[in-house]
Amino acid sequence: MKLKIAIAGYGNLGRGVECAVTAAPDMELCALFTRRDPISVKPSTNVPVYSMDKAPEMKNDIDVLILCGGSANDLPTQTPEFAKHFNVIDSFDTHAKIPEHFANVDKSCRESGKVGIISVGWDPGMFSLNRLYGQAILPEGNDYTFWGKGVSQGHSDAIRRIDGVLDARQYTIPVDAALESVRRGDNPTLTTREKHTRECFVVAEDGADLARIEKEIVTMPNYFADYDTTVHFISKEELLRDHAGIPHGGRVFRTGTTNGGKNSHVIEYSLKLDSNPEFTASVLVAFARAAARLNAEGVSGAKTVFDIAPAYLHAESGEYLRKNLL
Amino acid sequence: MKLKIAIAGYGNLGRGVECAVTAAPDMELCALFTRRDPISVKPSTNVPVYSMDKAPEMKNDIDVLILCGGSANDLPTQTPEFAKHFNVIDSFDTHAKIPEHFANVDKSCRESGKVGIISVGWDPGMFSLNRLYGQAILPEGNDYTFWGKGVSQGHSDAIRRIDGVLDARQYTIPVDAALESVRRGDNPTLTTREKHTRECFVVAEDGADLARIEKEIVTMPNYFADYDTTVHFISKEELLRDHAGIPHGGRVFRTGTTNGGKNSHVIEYSLKLDSNPEFTASVLVAFARAAARLNAEGVSGAKTVFDIAPAYLHAESGEYLRKNLL
Repeated sequence: MKLKIAIAGYGNLGRGVECAVTAAPDMELCALFTRRDPISVKPSTNVPVYSMDKAPEMKNDIDVLILCGGSANDLPTQTPEFAKHFNVIDSFDTHAKIPEHFANVDKSCRESGKVGIISVGWDPGMFSLNRLYGQAILPEGNDYTFWGKGVSQGHSDAIRRIDGVLDARQYTIPVDAALESVRRGDNPTLTTREKHTRECFVVAEDGADLARIEKEIVTMPNYFADYDTTVHFISKEELLRDHAGIPHGGRVFRTGTTNGGKNSHVIEYSLKLDSNPEFTASVLVAFARAAARLNAEGVSGAKTVFDIAPAYLHAESGEYLRKNLL
Repeated sequence: MKLKIAIAGYGNLGRGVECAVTAAPDMELCALFTRRDPISVKPSTNVPVYSMDKAPEMKNDIDVLILCGGSANDLPTQTPEFAKHFNVIDSFDTHAKIPEHFANVDKSCRESGKVGIISVGWDPGMFSLNRLYGQAILPEGNDYTFWGKGVSQGHSDAIRRIDGVLDARQYTIPVDAALESVRRGDNPTLTTREKHTRECFVVAEDGADLARIEKEIVTMPNYFADYDTTVHFISKEELLRDHAGIPHGGRVFRTGTTNGGKNSHVIEYSLKLDSNPEFTASVLVAFARAAARLNAEGVSGAKTVFDIAPAYLHAESGEYLRKNLL
C-alpha cells in the first residue's frame, strides 16, 4: 500500500513536493491544505484542496504531512501544532532557533506518539549531514561551507525594499581562489569577503537615482557591506528573460589529517541545482518516507536528519540496498 | 569513561586504526591481536600485543573489536567468529559475497547479543551512503562512480605476478572528459574504457624482455584488456622514491531531474586521500563508536553503514550537533 502524503502550504516549496511525491514509486498525494480559499488554489495534479483548518479531521487518512510554510512566520507555530495529529516534516532554517523549535515539536510528538523531522532540505539538511560525517571521520581537521552560485531569496528581498527598486535578483557566488585553496588542503582562514561575492540585477523605477540605489545596496549592513558586491541595472524584460529560475547549490568540505598530521585528506560534497525549491522538496519527501516507517515501528518524538538511518530514506528493502548499492 | 577499542590484525589497515583511535577524544586502544608471534609485532603506540587466540578471554574488557584482515581469506571466517564475543567492525569488500557475509555475521550477533557492522570504509562505505542518499532524493536519475587517481593494490599485485617483474605500482585514473560530461548533466552511457585509464610503473629484472612484459600487462583479461593502459619501466630506486605512498580517492555522482524532467540537479561526493588505509581506518573507528552506543542501547545483529543513524558516529551529543552542525 502506498504512503499517503499531504502538503500544507502551496508556494514554490509546496509545488516542489507535489512533483516529488508524484515521482516517488511508493507514495500518493492525498491532500493539499491551504490558508487561502481552496477554490482559488489550482494544483498541477488532481490532488484535492482543503482549508488548512480541516486538516485535523483527516488525521487518520494521512501518513505524513509535509509543511511547506516559511521559517519566519509559519513553521514555529504550524509544526508543533500539526505534530499533535500527524507525522510531520519541515524545512525550518532559522538556525539560532533550532533548539527551541526542536523542543516544541518534541513535546507535541511525545504527546501524540508521532514523529516530527525538522530542518530537512539541503542546508540545513544534506550539508549538515556532510558536516557531521566529515567531522566524525576526520576529527583533526576543518569544515568549510560555500554557497552558490545561486539566488538568495533573502538578499533579493532586501534589495526590493530599497526606495526606487521595482524588482531584483541577487546571486551568491563562491570565490574560486578560496575553493581552490581549500581543495588543495591549505586549511586557510577565510574572511567573509574572501569566501563569497554578491551580484545583483536590479530593475529601478523610471528616473530613480541609480547611484543612490547602488550605494544603499553595497553598504547595507549584514547583507552586503562585508562582501564585494556588483550591481547591474536591467529592464524588467531582461529580469524575466534571464533571471526567472531559482538555481542554487554549494559545497561542504572537510579537510583533515591522519597519522599525526603526516597525511592529508579532502572530502567534498557539492550540489548544483536548477531549482532550489524542487530539490529541497525532494529531500523532504525522502525523509517523509523515513517518518512513516519509523512511526510504524513505534518510534515517536522530534528528529533531525542526524537521527535517521539512511536505509529508511530509500524505497527499496535493506536486502536490495546491500546487494545493489553497498 | 572512554570506549575500549581493540584491533585484530596489524597490517596497513591495523596501523591506520591505531592512529585513528589515538586521534579520537572518547576512545582508548586497549589491545592488539595478531596471528604472528606477539613479541615480533612492534606497534607505534604502547598498546599491549596478544596472540589472536587469547581474544575471547578478554571479551569483557573490550567494547568494540575492529577487524583489520583481508576480505579474501580473513574476514569471511573472522568476523562471524569474533561476533560471538564482541561488537565487531570490518571492511569486507568482496561485493558479490556481501549478502552471505551479512547473514553469517547476523547469525553470530543474534546469538551473542552483539552488533556487527560490515563493509565499512569508503567503497564500500561512504560511497555506498552517497549512492543511497542520491537515489532516495532523486529517484529519476543516474549513478556514476569514478575511482582515483589512486593506487590499486589488486592491479599492482597482478603485474607483480608476471614473469620478469620485480615490483610494480598501478594507478587508476578517471577520464576528465567523462567526469565533465557527468558534471554537465549529460547523463552519458560510458564504457569501461571511457571512464578510467590505467598507468603502471614497473621494475623489471635485468635483461627481461620489456616488450613481452608490456604486452602481458595491457592484454591481461579483467585487469587491463578493457582499458587504455600506459606502462613505464623504472628503477627500483625510482619506485621507492616516487611511488611509496598509497593515495586514492574518487567520486560518486547522482544526476537527476525534477518536475517531469524540467530541472536538472547534480550531486557530487568526492574524496582525495593521501593514504587509503588511514582514511579507511578513520571510517572504521567512527562506526566503532556507533556499534558501542547501539549495543549499549540493547541493539544486536549485523548492520551496514545504511543502518546507522549519523548522530551515532560523532563523539558529541545530539544537542551539540543540532546547535553546531545542523
